[in-house]
Amino acid sequence: MSDSTRKSRQQVVESLHQVAAEMHNRMQRGEPPRMTLPVRSKTNISFDDRLGVFKYGKSKTVRDATKLGSARQLLRTLHITEFIEEMIDSGKSSTLREMYYISEGWGNGKFGSQNESNNLAEDLEIVTKCLREDFKLRPEEDGARIIGNITVEERNRRGEWMTINCRDDVGDSGYGVPYNVEEEKLKLVDEDIDFVMAIETGGMFDRLIENGFDEEARCALIHLKGQPARSTRRIMRRISDEWKKPIVVFTDCDPWSFRIFASIAYGAIKTAHISEYLATKEATYLGITADDILAYDLPSDDLSKQDINALEAELSDPRFNTGWWQEQIKLMQEMGKKAEQQSLAKYGLDFVTDTYLPEKLDGIGLGY
Amino acid sequence: MSDSTRKSRQQVVESLHQVAAEMHNRMQRGEPPRMTLPVRSKTNISFDDRLGVFKYGKSKTVRDATKLGSARQLLRTLHITEFIEEMIDSGKSSTLREMYYISEGWGNGKFGSQNESNNLAEDLEIVTKCLREDFKLRPEEDGARIIGNITVEERNRRGEWMTINCRDDVGDSGYGVPYNVEEEKLKLVDEDIDFVMAIETGGMFDRLIENGFDEEARCALIHLKGQPARSTRRIMRRISDEWKKPIVVFTDCDPWSFRIFASIAYGAIKTAHISEYLATKEATYLGITADDILAYDLPSDDLSKQDINALEAELSDPRFNTGWWQEQIKLMQEMGKKAEQQSLAKYGLDFVTDTYLPEKLDGIGLGY
Repeated sequence: MSDSTRKSRQQVVESLHQVAAEMHNRMQRGEPPRMTLPVRSKTNISFDDRLGVFKYGKSKTVRDATKLGSARQLLRTLHITEFIEEMIDSGKSSTLREMYYISEGWGNGKFGSQNESNNLAEDLEIVTKCLREDFKLRPEEDGARIIGNITVEERNRRGEWMTINCRDDVGDSGYGVPYNVEEEKLKLVDEDIDFVMAIETGGMFDRLIENGFDEEARCALIHLKGQPARSTRRIMRRISDEWKKPIVVFTDCDPWSFRIFASIAYGAIKTAHISEYLATKEATYLGITADDILAYDLPSDDLSKQDINALEAELSDPRFNTGWWQEQIKLMQEMGKKAEQQSLAKYGLDFVTDTYLPEKLDGIGLGY
Repeated sequence: MSDSTRKSRQQVVESLHQVAAEMHNRMQRGEPPRMTLPVRSKTNISFDDRLGVFKYGKSKTVRDATKLGSARQLLRTLHITEFIEEMIDSGKSSTLREMYYISEGWGNGKFGSQNESNNLAEDLEIVTKCLREDFKLRPEEDGARIIGNITVEERNRRGEWMTINCRDDVGDSGYGVPYNVEEEKLKLVDEDIDFVMAIETGGMFDRLIENGFDEEARCALIHLKGQPARSTRRIMRRISDEWKKPIVVFTDCDPWSFRIFASIAYGAIKTAHISEYLATKEATYLGITADDILAYDLPSDDLSKQDINALEAELSDPRFNTGWWQEQIKLMQEMGKKAEQQSLAKYGLDFVTDTYLPEKLDGIGLGY
C-alpha cells in the first residue's frame, strides 16, 4: 500500500462494491455468502525482516452466513459499506463512535459495543486494501501538534486550500494535524529544516518551543501526545519519504515510551495490516536512555511491576532485537529505574536545549 | 481579582517579596517565620450567593517554622519565589512538573511529590492574590481548540503580536488556546458571532465543524477536552465579559458532564480562590439533558454505581440548587440512564445540526 498505489475515491467505492459482489455472487450460486480475512491474533503477526515492519501472516479465517453470529457480521459489513459510500458521496466523515451509534438504525445489524464496530472497520481495511481514512472514519483523539519551519497546504472543510507555515502562521500551541493527512487533504509544500524531532510529552514540547530549539537546531517539533495517532505516524512517514528528513524520537525512559518508538519505527500490532504505510523504519531513538540516567545523574523512579513485565516482554520483541536495545533494556532491569524527559529540569530549564540535546544529537551525527 | 485589579509584572514580584519580607521581619524580631493561609478543605469552601460562585471561607491556618515539616514548607516557598522571579526576569515559563524536578537542586527543600509542589503553587496564589499564570507556571495538558469567526492577537514566543482569525487562518483542527490567555499574551480583537458553544467531546466538536454549524448558527465553537483547563474557563469568561456573548454548554448527559458545566459556571473546589476570575455565571447548560433522552429517544447506558453516587452528591451541591437541575437529576435517577452527545448520530450525521441544536437553542432564546 505504497503511495503510488493509493486509491482514488472511485476505486475505494469499487473496492467496497466488491465486498458486496462476492457475497451476492455466492448467494446466486446457492452458497452462503462469506468474507475471507487474515486471522487477527498475535500468533498470526510476524516481523517482516525485509521490510523491517510487523505484518500479518498467511493464516486466514472465513466468516460465512452458516452461523447466526457470522451472518450478523456480514449484514453489518454491508450496512457499513453503504454508510461509507454515502459519506464519500456527500463529502462527510464520521467518528468511530458515531458509526457505532448509527448502527442503532440497523435492526439486526446493530453493534453490541464500539469494540465490534472498530474491529469491523479494520476488517474492511484489510479486505479492501483501503485505509480507514479512505472510508472517512476518524478517531476521537486529537492529532499531533507541529512547530517548525515547514509549510503545508491543508484543504479545509470548504474545499479551499490554505497555506500554513508551521512556525510563522500559528500561535505557540502550533499547527494541529488533521485526522486525514493524505494528499487529498494535506500537501507538504516546503521546508527549511534538517530533521524532525518527535516528543512524547506536552511539557517537553512546550519547553523546546519556549527555548526556540526548533530555530536553533533547524528542526520541526512534533508533539506525539503519548501513543501516536495514525495521522501522526503517517505524517512522519511522509516527511521521511518526501523530504528525506531524519526522524528523531525523544521520549521518557520507560518501557511504554520504548513502545511508542517501536510503533513509529516498525509498526504496531493493531495496525499490522498497514505497517508499510505508517511505519518509518529510518526513525532513531534519541533518549532518554538508561545510559542517560547514569551519565546525567537524572532523578528517577523505581520500576513498577508492570514496568518490569513490559521490559521482559520487550527483550523477546523482534522490534527490540538489536544489540543496542538489548543492552539498554538489560541496563534498566539492573538499575530497576526509569526517568522522565522533564527530569532534565534538575539542572535548570535550559539544560535540555543547551547541553543534553546538542550532546545527544552530536552522538547520532545530527550535531549543529 | 477582577480585570481592573490584575497585577503588573512588577507588582507580582513585589507580592512575592512581601512573602519573604513577612518571614524576614518576624525573624528579626526573634519570632519564628510564618505564612497564614485559608484552610484548604471542603469544610472551608462555601457558595457565595451574591457572586454565585464557590469561595473560601474565613478559617485560617498558620504555617510556621516551629515544626520541621512546616519549616521545610517555608523554605520551599522561598525557593519557589526565587525561581518564579528568575523566570519573570528572563521571560521564561515552566510546567508544574519541571518545577517539581527543579527542586532536586534545593537540598532540604526538595519536594516529596508533585502534589506537594502543585499545592504550594496554589498556596502562593492565595497568599499573593496573583495567578499561577502570573508566576509563569503552566499545566501539562493542552488548552482548548476554537473554531469560529473571532479574531485574536497572540503574542508569540518572539514577542511579536500575531493576528489570527479562528475561522479563516486555521486548519480544521482550529486555533489552539495557549496556557496564558491574559491581556499580555492574548487580546480579543474582533468578532462576528452571536454566542459561544462549549463542547465536551472532540467527536462532537469535529461534527459541528464539518457540518459548518459555526457559520450557520453564527457562533464560536470551543472544544473543552473533558474537565476544562483554567485557560479554557478563563477565555470563556473574557469573551462573556468583553464581548457580552452568551456561553452555551453542550455535553454528554452524565453526572461528570454536569460537573464540567458547574465548574464553568460557578467554579471548582480546587480553584475556589480564583472563582471570581474563572467562572462565567451567565453560562447556560444546553444539553444533553435527561429530558432529551426521553424526548429524542436516544441510545443510553445504565448508570454505574459511581454515577449514582455522583448524582446523589449533586442533589445537595449548592451549584445544582435550582428547581430545573433538581428535576433533571431526579429524572436521571428514576430512569437509571445516561447518554452521550454522539448518540444523536442514531438519526444520522446531520440530525444534531439540522434538528437537535436548533430546537434546543430556540428553547433558550438563541434560535436562528
